[in-house]
Amino acid sequence: MSKGKVCLAYSGGLDTSCILAWLLEQGYEVVCYMADVGQEEDFEAAKVKAKQIGALECYVDDLRKEFVEQLCFPAIQCNAIYENVYLLGTSLARPVIARGQMAVAKREGCFAVSHGCTGKGNDQVRFELAFYALDPKIKVIAPWRDPVFYERFKGRNDLLEYAAEKGVPVSQTKAKPWSMDENLAHCSYEAGILEDPDVTPPKNVWKLTVDPEDAPDKPEDFTVFFEKGLPVKLVDAQGATTDSLELFLKANAIARRHGVGRIDIVENRFIGLKSRGCYETPGLTCLRNAHIDLEGLVLDREVRALRDQFVTFNYAKILYNGLYFSPEREFLESSIVASQTTVNGQVRCRVYKGSFTVLGRSSETEKLYDMSESSMDEIGDFAPSETTGFISVQAIRLKKYGLKKQETGEAL
Amino acid sequence: MSKGKVCLAYSGGLDTSCILAWLLEQGYEVVCYMADVGQEEDFEAAKVKAKQIGALECYVDDLRKEFVEQLCFPAIQCNAIYENVYLLGTSLARPVIARGQMAVAKREGCFAVSHGCTGKGNDQVRFELAFYALDPKIKVIAPWRDPVFYERFKGRNDLLEYAAEKGVPVSQTKAKPWSMDENLAHCSYEAGILEDPDVTPPKNVWKLTVDPEDAPDKPEDFTVFFEKGLPVKLVDAQGATTDSLELFLKANAIARRHGVGRIDIVENRFIGLKSRGCYETPGLTCLRNAHIDLEGLVLDREVRALRDQFVTFNYAKILYNGLYFSPEREFLESSIVASQTTVNGQVRCRVYKGSFTVLGRSSETEKLYDMSESSMDEIGDFAPSETTGFISVQAIRLKKYGLKKQETGEAL
Amino acid sequence: MSKGKVCLAYSGGLDTSCILAWLLEQGYEVVCYMADVGQEEDFEAAKVKAKQIGALECYVDDLRKEFVEQLCFPAIQCNAIYENVYLLGTSLARPVIARGQMAVAKREGCFAVSHGCTGKGNDQVRFELAFYALDPKIKVIAPWRDPVFYERFKGRNDLLEYAAEKGVPVSQTKAKPWSMDENLAHCSYEAGILEDPDVTPPKNVWKLTVDPEDAPDKPEDFTVFFEKGLPVKLVDAQGATTDSLELFLKANAIARRHGVGRIDIVENRFIGLKSRGCYETPGLTCLRNAHIDLEGLVLDREVRALRDQFVTFNYAKILYNGLYFSPEREFLESSIVASQTTVNGQVRCRVYKGSFTVLGRSSETEKLYDMSESSMDEIGDFAPSETTGFISVQAIRLKKYGLKKQETGEAL
Amino acid sequence: MSKGKVCLAYSGGLDTSCILAWLLEQGYEVVCYMADVGQEEDFEAAKVKAKQIGALECYVDDLRKEFVEQLCFPAIQCNAIYENVYLLGTSLARPVIARGQMAVAKREGCFAVSHGCTGKGNDQVRFELAFYALDPKIKVIAPWRDPVFYERFKGRNDLLEYAAEKGVPVSQTKAKPWSMDENLAHCSYEAGILEDPDVTPPKNVWKLTVDPEDAPDKPEDFTVFFEKGLPVKLVDAQGATTDSLELFLKANAIARRHGVGRIDIVENRFIGLKSRGCYETPGLTCLRNAHIDLEGLVLDREVRALRDQFVTFNYAKILYNGLYFSPEREFLESSIVASQTTVNGQVRCRVYKGSFTVLGRSSETEKLYDMSESSMDEIGDFAPSETTGFISVQAIRLKKYGLKKQETGEAL
Repeated sequence: MSKGKVCLAYSGGLDTSCILAWLLEQGYEVVCYMADVGQEEDFEAAKVKAKQIGALECYVDDLRKEFVEQLCFPAIQCNAIYENVYLLGTSLARPVIARGQMAVAKREGCFAVSHGCTGKGNDQVRFELAFYALDPKIKVIAPWRDPVFYERFKGRNDLLEYAAEKGVPVSQTKAKPWSMDENLAHCSYEAGILEDPDVTPPKNVWKLTVDPEDAPDKPEDFTVFFEKGLPVKLVDAQGATTDSLELFLKANAIARRHGVGRIDIVENRFIGLKSRGCYETPGLTCLRNAHIDLEGLVLDREVRALRDQFVTFNYAKILYNGLYFSPEREFLESSIVASQTTVNGQVRCRVYKGSFTVLGRSSETEKLYDMSESSMDEIGDFAPSETTGFISVQAIRLKKYGLKKQETGEAL
Repeated sequence: MSKGKVCLAYSGGLDTSCILAWLLEQGYEVVCYMADVGQEEDFEAAKVKAKQIGALECYVDDLRKEFVEQLCFPAIQCNAIYENVYLLGTSLARPVIARGQMAVAKREGCFAVSHGCTGKGNDQVRFELAFYALDPKIKVIAPWRDPVFYERFKGRNDLLEYAAEKGVPVSQTKAKPWSMDENLAHCSYEAGILEDPDVTPPKNVWKLTVDPEDAPDKPEDFTVFFEKGLPVKLVDAQGATTDSLELFLKANAIARRHGVGRIDIVENRFIGLKSRGCYETPGLTCLRNAHIDLEGLVLDREVRALRDQFVTFNYAKILYNGLYFSPEREFLESSIVASQTTVNGQVRCRVYKGSFTVLGRSSETEKLYDMSESSMDEIGDFAPSETTGFISVQAIRLKKYGLKKQETGEAL
Repeated sequence: MSKGKVCLAYSGGLDTSCILAWLLEQGYEVVCYMADVGQEEDFEAAKVKAKQIGALECYVDDLRKEFVEQLCFPAIQCNAIYENVYLLGTSLARPVIARGQMAVAKREGCFAVSHGCTGKGNDQVRFELAFYALDPKIKVIAPWRDPVFYERFKGRNDLLEYAAEKGVPVSQTKAKPWSMDENLAHCSYEAGILEDPDVTPPKNVWKLTVDPEDAPDKPEDFTVFFEKGLPVKLVDAQGATTDSLELFLKANAIARRHGVGRIDIVENRFIGLKSRGCYETPGLTCLRNAHIDLEGLVLDREVRALRDQFVTFNYAKILYNGLYFSPEREFLESSIVASQTTVNGQVRCRVYKGSFTVLGRSSETEKLYDMSESSMDEIGDFAPSETTGFISVQAIRLKKYGLKKQETGEAL
Repeated sequence: MSKGKVCLAYSGGLDTSCILAWLLEQGYEVVCYMADVGQEEDFEAAKVKAKQIGALECYVDDLRKEFVEQLCFPAIQCNAIYENVYLLGTSLARPVIARGQMAVAKREGCFAVSHGCTGKGNDQVRFELAFYALDPKIKVIAPWRDPVFYERFKGRNDLLEYAAEKGVPVSQTKAKPWSMDENLAHCSYEAGILEDPDVTPPKNVWKLTVDPEDAPDKPEDFTVFFEKGLPVKLVDAQGATTDSLELFLKANAIARRHGVGRIDIVENRFIGLKSRGCYETPGLTCLRNAHIDLEGLVLDREVRALRDQFVTFNYAKILYNGLYFSPEREFLESSIVASQTTVNGQVRCRVYKGSFTVLGRSSETEKLYDMSESSMDEIGDFAPSETTGFISVQAIRLKKYGLKKQETGEAL
């Protein structure tokens, strides 16, 4: 008799195929779930394989548009970045995948969901916190945290043996000595030979982008248009793209050709370990940089300062830690929207051998920048003599400070 | 009879030469002051010119080492950046110049100091707030904010005429259609044709760095060593450099060859205007990026988070606004030092056609990164099963949130 | 011939009466404006006096409800407080007064507005920044910053003489040796004998509240109901009040009877001076404290933390500095609203001899607090053993820290 | 044969006495540890009882002075407060207790430490994170999180039976229907009948302070002197106290007599549950309020703002969550010290029927407050006309905002 139905996040790879077989062995019925978030994958082959192993069903969900619009775009709107470097590519995909999986779990009447995340990483946390928020009654089966499982399967060989025993088909390609996670926004590379933070990633690690040294000798230019901080049009030599998904893919294609968006970082995981990750985030790097640039032209200084210090930092931290489905994310997202009403305009961009440059920016609707007023050569509406009073008043407090230093004889 | 002695920040250019003549005309005695903060300048010629115009004396101060050690290095230690883009090159130089000028003013018995800053910019504020903190009794003469002066000299032609009238020598070179400010850390370009934020800076604007498209086709590698967050050694193909000033100049030379450090930004001035600036910050860009990278390896997550949100943001803002000589800068600098005790190690870097990349990093003394512990393939000291409890506890709050959403029928 | 029409913020007192006479003397036509923000004032008498002096007209605006709803209530929603102590009573009233005055100025075709604020205080800044945002073309006449005016009127005696000369009626009451500003939310006392920060305010300074030592020997209890963080009902022994203005006045009445809301502080003005202020904020103190208490029961921890660190601090600073009509206030107010969706419930309160106490709180709609779950005596849904994993994971980072300390021999 | 030596945090009460017996039953040798942090306790009787039950030894450590100086005083220096209300009394004591216990554990060669904290509270986290940082190899035995233990002892009756069985002496006094934790800084009351957040704590809950209604009808005055933000002298009618511990006890005595320091809050525990706590923090309330007041007089505005927003908030959060022995606490404590160099002076205080009031404050060394300069009646060194320029410059940005609103027809 079945111990109940489980919905497994399935990838078609060795790990989740073995987990599928193992769950069946434990007496569960299993429904497989695959999210298409833009990764390069043979979904049909995986589907066949899942059923062959014994899954009741295997669903493939195209979540690309919702991934771009609901996750990537707010990240652009608030210039999200983790620890000064990481653009959150993996973190951004997790909420939509978890939500898709939970919807299938519900539809199929599953009492539990399962995944193949390891027990030391961030993804287990991100998936499970999402699961619990989406349905507080859901059960989670995390084999890589279950001693019964992880003590039985201590390495790749144990899995290969088990696959052979269970008749699980295994692709002939030799595993790469690092692990990868791909979606529309990025591809990550970590573990294996990359665990030594002083080892430079070998050239063949990088999958999405051309090596900057092999990139074209001619730069490529394009223009991104924003409305309320959201990319709404991208114009390049081929023409204009306005559909959100197409626009994002177009930005990816341009940046990939020119080797833009490679990152190598030692970061702090939510559980407190440090880990080394190499990431490619081609299109998102360009769109985020263009957005930052436009804000210089059209966003009020104080709104920007508040947003930078609080919203950007915390939104990134929350996403990284898997707290997307949370009151604080809802709260911060309201603030993001409120900050972006004036972020309307366009940015002319250039990519070249790994670098992204802004060529110019303009806005038809926003007038915060006033060429004649900020000009050093024109007097305009504003009298320079008025600045004297501004400085005098700012100096009141500092004079007191200077006096005290003089009294105590401390050098400044 | 003299109206008293004034110490003028002198550059040898048309503006300050006319101001010098004008101050003399007003009945002041004038001592000129030139700070060598690493700008390309014929100091001797300027000195001769100042005396020829009528200055009592013209002092040239080599402040390069104190500029690097007291300003640039703390900025590296806290990864200072203004509005996500600007590395504060001009702001960093102002405090040392103001301090040098005030020391001369004091030695020479000047009752006032003067400068040639315009009345809409940041520099007037930076200089004067420094003057007032360094000596609360000092008087400031700011001709470009004095209607008597600025209504008389409405453009370059008025100055040229005045120079001719007063016998002020004028170099034959035609003025560039933008203004520049150079020091060891950077060169800035603004105003003139750059005032239109949609105009791409012409190729001949850039002075310090090679155009990335003209940079060598071969990358160049070097290694930076840090102790307590300070750069202490730079090793490249030519050998090792440990002297602070030499090290900084070496970083500059490498980055300049490869076109690293160009910035183009619309920023928010302290007085509330937006302005467009183009900047080259070659060496500082590399040293700052290397420092950020090393912190990933050796800095505690929570110290980093507090430092990022609190110290970095505010230190940059304070520097930008000219509040170096202030209680808050002293306070923040204590925090910077306190945050850097573990920032010891080395970073292998690469520059190539405008981009900077980290190749690897290591530390002999710091052990926060533990290859085997963070490895996905090893169990080590840490039991993956323990993460279950971590997630369960993190989920307590989120389950409540999910329940409420279920009750109210709101979709997540 | 008239130099144009000016709208003067008029109070009926000696200062603004003399300013009115002086503006007329300068050749302006003057329309007077009085805002009723709840201060005790004989508006009719003042109106008569204004016209008698020569005002074209004198308008009295009842802004009490808009003051309570648009300013006091958002301040309660975000627990606004300046420098840990001051509840912003004066700052809260300025925006509505400035808006009212500008509306009259517009209707009457005035080219300028005028006020009687002194040149060292916060109020001049608050009023004028509001004026300029409300109409960037408006002119401001600030006599107390005009040397022509302030050098002529160096003290109260000069004003009294001028009043006599101009036939301005002066009330017989002797001026108090401190200045006051009253509205619905508070009354302030500063200057004069209160300038010495070590002088305890004499008993007769306080106007709104009973001295705690003279307050009733029996406490008084009442209940405040909140919806989305806004006070919507107050129930006391006399019954229930739901109208916003009535509710606020009721809270005032209760708190005044029991001496609640007295404050004495040395604060930092926007212009950089420190000043000493004594304030009475009876009702607002109670409503704010009740609101803080309710948030404990119904607000998510992380939303609260973000709101406390980011919104509360900055909203108070912005209000204090007179930046109500600004992009940053709009931005923060959106965040306030977003933070308060769950702040629904009721708080039972007690006042007694100067102190405010919460007796209990409850919510019919919010379930974040779960008596059985947080109970130490019940196991419930949550297994205590799970906390072990939580602690283990939290300790990963700290163990590294401890190991380093052991290695370096530093005591913890 | 012994399973090894364990050091148990012992209180002499029913819980830890049963845990002691149970640990012995499990085959451990047990050394008991009692920290005297100022709680009212018969340490000698507890010592006798521990040995009678079977402890190898029972140590009593007087940690009161180190508790006051190392924990309470830094908390005063940074005005620490959690969620606007709670003064962290329990959290402050945990680090010194954990450190004392670990020192004994080391001296006695214990492989593990144990405690009687429940599995849903904060204290287990605070103790264990401290243990792990102090010795990363230590083992922790937490019976109330061990199902073997907590399923055997489901309530007080099970413990009483076990005590009878094991011959553990039980005091005759009936347990109170709430739990308490006392130390020099405060006493806490929670659980039991207090779990309903709408139940007003009965009068007999409060132990340390007199009911405000029963407090003397005459206020009591005293003066606190600070150096670098630390209380160094307290003067009252009986004379002056300068010893840190004596001073703290004196502040307690005064505040207790007058019913000052009662708090009732629903707070957010680290593990994500909300819980209701009632606290009495008499002396600390007074010293913290006096410190806040003095900062108004002597602390620079910007240092205060940075400290309030970052240090105060985060220091409190870190302490509350048990992260005292952490890099971030070290970092923040350096910032606290750096912020307090000017906090020198004295505050005259009054307590009366539950309330604390400041009567006045002064400083002999600090001059930031300047009576004549802030005076509205004197012109002094500062020209009011200069403020015009200050306002004009502040308005530049706001005028742009106003223009945009006019253009779009949005009302302000």
